[in-house]
Amino acid sequence: MPVPPIFGTQVRGIKGMKISIERGTLLKAVSQAQSVVERRNTIPILANVLIEAEGDQAMFRATDLDIEVVDKAPAQVEKAGATTVAATTLHEIVRKLPDGALVTLTADSAAGRLTVEAGRSNFSLATLPKEDFPVMASSEYQSNFTASAALLRRLFDKSKFAISTEETRYYLNGVYMHVSDGSEGGKVLRCVATDGHRLARIDADLPDGAADMPGVIVPRKTVGELRKLLDDDEMDIAVSVSETKVRFATPDITLTSKVIDGTFPDYTRVIPQGNTRQLEVDAAEFAQAVDRVATVSSERSRAVKLQLDTDKLVLSVNAPDSGAAEEELAVAYSDERLEIGFNAKYLLEIASQVDRENAVFLFNSAGDPTLMREGNDLSAVYVVMPMRV
Amino acid sequence: MPVPPIFGTQVRGIKGMKISIERGTLLKAVSQAQSVVERRNTIPILANVLIEAEGDQAMFRATDLDIEVVDKAPAQVEKAGATTVAATTLHEIVRKLPDGALVTLTADSAAGRLTVEAGRSNFSLATLPKEDFPVMASSEYQSNFTASAALLRRLFDKSKFAISTEETRYYLNGVYMHVSDGSEGGKVLRCVATDGHRLARIDADLPDGAADMPGVIVPRKTVGELRKLLDDDEMDIAVSVSETKVRFATPDITLTSKVIDGTFPDYTRVIPQGNTRQLEVDAAEFAQAVDRVATVSSERSRAVKLQLDTDKLVLSVNAPDSGAAEEELAVAYSDERLEIGFNAKYLLEIASQVDRENAVFLFNSAGDPTLMREGNDLSAVYVVMPMRV
Repeated sequence: MPVPPIFGTQVRGIKGMKISIERGTLLKAVSQAQSVVERRNTIPILANVLIEAEGDQAMFRATDLDIEVVDKAPAQVEKAGATTVAATTLHEIVRKLPDGALVTLTADSAAGRLTVEAGRSNFSLATLPKEDFPVMASSEYQSNFTASAALLRRLFDKSKFAISTEETRYYLNGVYMHVSDGSEGGKVLRCVATDGHRLARIDADLPDGAADMPGVIVPRKTVGELRKLLDDDEMDIAVSVSETKVRFATPDITLTSKVIDGTFPDYTRVIPQGNTRQLEVDAAEFAQAVDRVATVSSERSRAVKLQLDTDKLVLSVNAPDSGAAEEELAVAYSDERLEIGFNAKYLLEIASQVDRENAVFLFNSAGDPTLMREGNDLSAVYVVMPMRV
Repeated sequence: MPVPPIFGTQVRGIKGMKISIERGTLLKAVSQAQSVVERRNTIPILANVLIEAEGDQAMFRATDLDIEVVDKAPAQVEKAGATTVAATTLHEIVRKLPDGALVTLTADSAAGRLTVEAGRSNFSLATLPKEDFPVMASSEYQSNFTASAALLRRLFDKSKFAISTEETRYYLNGVYMHVSDGSEGGKVLRCVATDGHRLARIDADLPDGAADMPGVIVPRKTVGELRKLLDDDEMDIAVSVSETKVRFATPDITLTSKVIDGTFPDYTRVIPQGNTRQLEVDAAEFAQAVDRVATVSSERSRAVKLQLDTDKLVLSVNAPDSGAAEEELAVAYSDERLEIGFNAKYLLEIASQVDRENAVFLFNSAGDPTLMREGNDLSAVYVVMPMRV
């Protein structure tokens, strides 16, 4: 990453800084930071992580101007101060250092360099001045509440597959998190994602203090970064929401993100209410069978045909050029005979959302949207459009 | 894969065939076959595997016209016969079938289809006539001998990293396997690969009956396919060599390959004889240090500088734009001070060939080729050209 000459003189304004951090702690903090940094930057400082040391901790801050992540880590601060350095290079170096090493970071204000020392390894990295780093403006949040990592993980993990990748429909490029009337009465915290072909609607108990939360569309990248905060079931996540921003925080990590500036469409109209033909099937068996029959077609949007008869489901694919496939499954179905086709990828993705229970499909006709849920659980509902077969 | 209409009528000439094979056995045979098949074929039948069933076994044959692999597998042959079918589709299907399933393959000569059945799964795949499959002509081999899988694995594994990828120097696009005078007297089986920047020369005891083997250049892809036959140390591999072909065979798998039609350059002139400055270093420590210091440079051909002093090695990289790195290693060195530079990737690849022992480097000057070997073992010798730093 070439440093433009304009920074050459400014660099001398940085105050020095000297800290020591255990390699594992440093790696964790820098990993989170470098994953927010975009690989290609036209603005050099966006490739950097801002390191600020004071008291007995260091803060590592990275941004792509839409998302900002701040990691706090315990450090021996010999001299308080701040600097910025290439996030990926620092991450690579720390990753390659031996486990358990003590890493010393020393910013040399005169030279515009950060020295990284560990054992007999010594690195000198170009810095950019702290003053140039775009720290995200702080916001007024209308709503502040706490949710468990497990609750948030379920909401986003089960909905994110349906996020649209079409950039023209930017308002579908995220998960719509909002407060809604639940399907069994009372208010719920709800996440919805859709790309127009399929939709996921996931509900959770409304956390205390979330009732007046404005609905926000959380961008796809933010959903991915958030996921890294949610591995520990017991962790409490502090959530703050405004009309323009959302913030998720653990004691060590704060993830702040702009939300998508658009209106999420009225998804309730898409969810069929009158589908009565019910199919119940072992979700894993179903997914494996769909995967197998789809093998014979090399087309991208492979259509799988479902033929439903009393307690019998036949899945089939017909690709005139390369072959045909058919598989029969024992199911629970007692309505009249039905033939309906779906994109194999959509069926697979939906079926793989089912954790423990059987998948329950509710059909209307071969041309109408189909609803799927996990057993009798109404807190996770999926809709998929059929295709002609 | 569209079947051209011309085959539509020919297909009816195929005799029927019906066999049953255990899924794991079938998967193994088809895996090897599909890996030889090229992903993009202008000749449709080259995407297919030829299945021939007779007695109590089935043979699976695939080719790219340069390499042919034949896998034999035990099968219940209900009706002997042959057909050809898309290798990757068959592989995908078998891979997705449940473990332990019995798979029945039935060729329908009238319909030009192969039916694949297992449990309640049923696939029908387009076939192409057996007669169109290009079976590689059999050869007279001048030399036939047996070598252990362990011996061949060492010869090829330790040399293949140096194979050139430059297509204009096609005669360097493989491993030169030949009989040579060993460095400690007597004849050896030797594998040499080089791309002009680095060279690997690996020797093994000459197997009985290999003395009159013509030297052959084994192409890169063949080296890769051969590797799959060499996992079992105790396996004996039957090797046959002619001026134009080489064949490696286990009881189940026969891999036949054309050799590269060219003259391998006189590599002996490249191997320095008079290098006297000896450095001995822990190979793993050395590789890790090279990897770390190379981090600061984003260039593809990163130069690492080695500064040698009495029992001390300093590795360093200087990338004016992004930073600098330095690391010191305790080594055994007693010659005069020397500074020499190498491509970091080349150093890493060579150092990672060292299995157990220390790496011994023999230098002459900063401009001369450097020799590396594993401890005092002369049966694996590497040469690397320095670069200016």
